[in-house]
Amino acid sequence: MSTYFPWQDAIATASQSHRQSALDHQAQLTKPAGSLGQLEQLAVTLASLQQTNTPAADRVSIAVFAADHGVCAEGISLFPQEVTGQMIANFVTGGAAISVMARELNAQLEVINLGTATPPPLTDGVIDEQIAPGTANLAEQAAMCDAQLQQALLAGDKAARRAADKGSQLFIAGEMGIGNTTSASALACALLGAAPAALAGPGTGLDSNGVQRKVTVIERALARHGDDPAPLTCLASLGGFEIAAIAGAFIGCAVRGVPVLVDGFIVSVAALAAVRLRPELTDWLLYAHRSQEPGHRLVLDALNAEPLLDLGMRLGEGSGAAVAVPLLRSACALHNHMATFADAGVSNSGND
Amino acid sequence: MSTYFPWQDAIATASQSHRQSALDHQAQLTKPAGSLGQLEQLAVTLASLQQTNTPAADRVSIAVFAADHGVCAEGISLFPQEVTGQMIANFVTGGAAISVMARELNAQLEVINLGTATPPPLTDGVIDEQIAPGTANLAEQAAMCDAQLQQALLAGDKAARRAADKGSQLFIAGEMGIGNTTSASALACALLGAAPAALAGPGTGLDSNGVQRKVTVIERALARHGDDPAPLTCLASLGGFEIAAIAGAFIGCAVRGVPVLVDGFIVSVAALAAVRLRPELTDWLLYAHRSQEPGHRLVLDALNAEPLLDLGMRLGEGSGAAVAVPLLRSACALHNHMATFADAGVSNSGND
Repeated sequence: MSTYFPWQDAIATASQSHRQSALDHQAQLTKPAGSLGQLEQLAVTLASLQQTNTPAADRVSIAVFAADHGVCAEGISLFPQEVTGQMIANFVTGGAAISVMARELNAQLEVINLGTATPPPLTDGVIDEQIAPGTANLAEQAAMCDAQLQQALLAGDKAARRAADKGSQLFIAGEMGIGNTTSASALACALLGAAPAALAGPGTGLDSNGVQRKVTVIERALARHGDDPAPLTCLASLGGFEIAAIAGAFIGCAVRGVPVLVDGFIVSVAALAAVRLRPELTDWLLYAHRSQEPGHRLVLDALNAEPLLDLGMRLGEGSGAAVAVPLLRSACALHNHMATFADAGVSNSGND
Repeated sequence: MSTYFPWQDAIATASQSHRQSALDHQAQLTKPAGSLGQLEQLAVTLASLQQTNTPAADRVSIAVFAADHGVCAEGISLFPQEVTGQMIANFVTGGAAISVMARELNAQLEVINLGTATPPPLTDGVIDEQIAPGTANLAEQAAMCDAQLQQALLAGDKAARRAADKGSQLFIAGEMGIGNTTSASALACALLGAAPAALAGPGTGLDSNGVQRKVTVIERALARHGDDPAPLTCLASLGGFEIAAIAGAFIGCAVRGVPVLVDGFIVSVAALAAVRLRPELTDWLLYAHRSQEPGHRLVLDALNAEPLLDLGMRLGEGSGAAVAVPLLRSACALHNHMATFADAGVSNSGND
């Protein structure tokens, strides 16, 4: 399946010299050593990835990938499938959570339609990458064919290229697709060799009967799929168009040297598939938050991820990542603008 | 000791009608019910406290209270005591972490000097509320006399009044005082009836021998103090001027209807003393973060606090609260600016 791979170039390498300079600089700032906790590590990581002494997360690109899922035929979501198209319209007209956050952050927001069951009520401002009116029902057959997977990966890569061309200092992917926690859970099971009951959760709000139905659907999908953990095979068999696109976007960002802030459960599953494809991607992924979706924990553990926030969010759209952006900006501002002990005439402790 | 009490007025009451309106509004926004997690609760709480349908955290007042501690004679800090005064200068000249964050947040920053062992190298821009050149050594005698405690509480109340007069939508208190984790730990022990070993931690970076020395100093202080948990008695016996001032500021904010975002360990101990004085204060306190200082957990538990962040920070100055402000702003922006299902023409789920 290597023909799917749209990337000829290697994934970019973090700068060890900028990393060391950033660590040295942190040790001189007027604070007890290490007292800014994860904010120090964030600034050092961004300095290393951005190859700079003044890391920044001012120019942020958010790409929301939307698509429908044939598995909705199994009754695994509380919301009707037409909501995917309706929410695409809500993204571009500015009423969705991610739209509000993009304005708050002064971030670029792209909405990318990979194919919906019901056409969105408006298309102005939507990037058209429609592959099909949704995937096939993954409980019955492969969600997509090889050519569709390639289209989805390429659509993600194009979004990464646009972000890089705009000089983005940070990339966020969001997702929208009624039924996509079922696809993401099935995909995570296949990638991790985990049981459906360990991954399936309430999604947008299923009760325990609903979650049990979801488990049964995923069990059928995995019985059909078998135990092949190859990431491209898993993506085609169990993924969604938006999930594959996000995997493609993340690799595309890392190839072009754009750090990624990973959102919640579904985006983390896309990240896991992408890391399985290209392990060097790991360095480029920062993690925004722990979703309330219970399966997220297993996926984060597999990625050795330590997310910044744990606020019980489970909305998707990239909203958790957007909410975490100010933490990166604070980390950078502190790194770039605090005085050193020498500058400020402050006595340092004896221990450093 | 009720003569200390500078407040004649009752603590303000949260509006239940605005709370209910905010809950109803959240249920109509284009997202699965509850999917914004703690951000929903934040918006609802602020709407209730601010008695508004459009909660906000745009106008933020940050007051950093600084003072020295006689207990430094016991060798319980890595940093020399002159750093308190040096940092006061660093706050007003803009190089400290809280100074950088105040600029990032476009927040008002006040620096209040309650008394240092070494005069700050500059005083322009510093609010002078000096009580004495630091407290007495709390291992040997009461840290302050009754009149000094009253001065400190009043200095805090004045900061709250200034914040209210400016129309502040949120108040943050920070602290600076070499040795003040020892004072805060001793105070928490007395208020909670807890053992010093459960509260004492590394502060700015003590090793295990240093922490053990701190435990011994706190044991001496508690043997002298006895087991009186009355908050004013504890504050005078074991507190710092800045800790008492913060307790006063928080009560002063709640009297005037200004919500408070509580910073880390030391500020939380001040909040605990204030809540013991005026239990109705509880409603007005939001909690920003879990400090890495191990004693913070016990104090947060006693306050039934669920902080927003857990980033391993332990800097003080109000920095953890400042870093959390964008979460409140995001919560308010989402509450105020997201579309409803009806507005956006999005189908709701069947379950709400």
